[in-house]
Amino acid sequence: MSSPTTFRGFAVHDNAKWSETKLIEYTPKPFGPRDIDVEIDACSVCGSDIHTVRDDWKKPNNVMPVIVGHEIIGRVVRIGSEATTGLKLGDRVGVGAQAWACLECDLCKSGNETYCDRLRHTYNARYDDGSETQGGYALHVRVHEYFVFKIPAALETNTTAPMLCAGITVFSPLKRNGCGKGSRVGVVGLGGLGSFAIMFAKAMGAEVYAISRNDKKKEDAFKLGADKYITTDTADWNKDYKYGLDLIICTANSTENFDLNKYLQLLTVGGKWVSVGIPDKPFEVSPRTFMGNACFMGASHLGSRHEMQEMLQLAADKNLKGWVETLPISVAGIKEALERAHNNDVRYRFTLTDFDKAFGEHVKL
Amino acid sequence: MSSPTTFRGFAVHDNAKWSETKLIEYTPKPFGPRDIDVEIDACSVCGSDIHTVRDDWKKPNNVMPVIVGHEIIGRVVRIGSEATTGLKLGDRVGVGAQAWACLECDLCKSGNETYCDRLRHTYNARYDDGSETQGGYALHVRVHEYFVFKIPAALETNTTAPMLCAGITVFSPLKRNGCGKGSRVGVVGLGGLGSFAIMFAKAMGAEVYAISRNDKKKEDAFKLGADKYITTDTADWNKDYKYGLDLIICTANSTENFDLNKYLQLLTVGGKWVSVGIPDKPFEVSPRTFMGNACFMGASHLGSRHEMQEMLQLAADKNLKGWVETLPISVAGIKEALERAHNNDVRYRFTLTDFDKAFGEHVKL
Repeated sequence: MSSPTTFRGFAVHDNAKWSETKLIEYTPKPFGPRDIDVEIDACSVCGSDIHTVRDDWKKPNNVMPVIVGHEIIGRVVRIGSEATTGLKLGDRVGVGAQAWACLECDLCKSGNETYCDRLRHTYNARYDDGSETQGGYALHVRVHEYFVFKIPAALETNTTAPMLCAGITVFSPLKRNGCGKGSRVGVVGLGGLGSFAIMFAKAMGAEVYAISRNDKKKEDAFKLGADKYITTDTADWNKDYKYGLDLIICTANSTENFDLNKYLQLLTVGGKWVSVGIPDKPFEVSPRTFMGNACFMGASHLGSRHEMQEMLQLAADKNLKGWVETLPISVAGIKEALERAHNNDVRYRFTLTDFDKAFGEHVKL
Repeated sequence: MSSPTTFRGFAVHDNAKWSETKLIEYTPKPFGPRDIDVEIDACSVCGSDIHTVRDDWKKPNNVMPVIVGHEIIGRVVRIGSEATTGLKLGDRVGVGAQAWACLECDLCKSGNETYCDRLRHTYNARYDDGSETQGGYALHVRVHEYFVFKIPAALETNTTAPMLCAGITVFSPLKRNGCGKGSRVGVVGLGGLGSFAIMFAKAMGAEVYAISRNDKKKEDAFKLGADKYITTDTADWNKDYKYGLDLIICTANSTENFDLNKYLQLLTVGGKWVSVGIPDKPFEVSPRTFMGNACFMGASHLGSRHEMQEMLQLAADKNLKGWVETLPISVAGIKEALERAHNNDVRYRFTLTDFDKAFGEHVKL
């Protein structure tokens, strides 16, 4: 096995035409002594992909054209000369939303490399030498070995791919905030992240409450592992559930149309609300709400290498599979996936497949 | 010893004339089998007293006239027939901001009686039978024995009184959120609560950072036990302190003129911000701030009986004294105390004293 000197992938060239891609060729960062090249077999479509191609976050200095995709599974095809994590050529591995961290700062050294202030995301980022990171709607991706995770043999490629970002994003705050036997965990929003939050919280032993605007996803929630289902469509919907939850994972991207105070009142004394979506607007919460139950509101970003490995092992041990619809990777397949995912018309994640068939024609970057 | 059937105290009659009191006589709640009557020797002046007499919180159904004061030390003069906590007539005891809780709900049973949704505060509250609670600018106060705390012999009355509310309000969140050896604790705001937060955090073993708008209170902060002093008067004041604190206790009543995001960036991953003041306006915080360090924002209300006892013992063991200025209780003394405290013209708490001299003339309620 080997990897080419240039990589090929489907790139968006214009935020105004955010679902239109062209197959391009680009030069990845120079191959470093701890880098790994992965030839990709599947890549799921994350909400962040859509926010990025639409420039929803108004991030300065976007990479353009941009190849998104950071829920990647493939095979190791090149290993840096100083790699230490024991990967072998041909190993099936996953790559998530982070490609690099300094691994030297106090945060990195304490299992908080996702909060390293020098971190590089898998796409739409630049290294110190100016080279750009590009994601997994591509045949290859190059990342630091620390962010490459061996996939346990028991797991399927297509249903596991979304765990690399959606999964770890909810697993990390569940793990860090006491989800387990005897705990009561609420999950707000039932999309890609919410589906994993329910599944993992249940697998970790918690009593799981799915919280949704209406009852459209009730059946799915129970199949995913929810014990209770709360709808928020009445004025006093939270009345019977106050002080009932130890932890709430909020996967909603927007808190605009709901009264955050009512959700926080669901928490027991000292309970925690963790947002894993990034709403556009500031949180606005009454100090009196916090006073009522001494609850905490916070957020979480991805998860550590150690947590990623633990999550994948949990999924293997408990036979967990992401709920995915597959689409072959291609200009048409990506367009359909991005547009339908943007409209929440997917239960609950698209995985792009058939990479071996896709990489014929391409244009030079 | 015995207690009268009516109690006398200095009451505010009009929120517009919030520093003017008249000595009145009122009928306390019927004496219950677990009630304690305390004859008062000292009562400190809390910020909540001022908010209440000014009606700053626009609470519905205020008690009026109102006798405030909930940092009370006195002697037990009557004990209910079914009391179980072992108090004896003449014991020196403290009473804080809470007079009653159901003691039957899950919260009460788990040491969270300050979050009981049936709790009654020491003043400006009503029992089920309609009788009103009145506070400690008075000769007596009647509360449930669960909220009466024996004062260790080593502690002075006048310097200990403010611990009953200001002290416990900061001690509880310090205790609950890991303050101790090896932890780094920030204290925002250096008033009555802030002074105790610094003192207790240091006594509990933490490295303490006082955080203030300017350096006016620097010398005091170090005397109180601070290890470092941070001023927030430059644009990039937080630059050198990011990720440096495990816990921040915010004692500021208003967050209006400061950028909360900059304070939250001081926290390490998973660190907590706990507000113990009640600002008038909602908290507004960018979700991206939370994402940067997975920090948590919350609040806290008073503290439990167990925590109160632990705090008083800590103060006795470490010879801790609140910094107080004393004023004799009287119409003039209360006026001066309320007005100067309202203007932050006190370092750091007034304790009203000389109760034995004050209770001569009075008007019938």
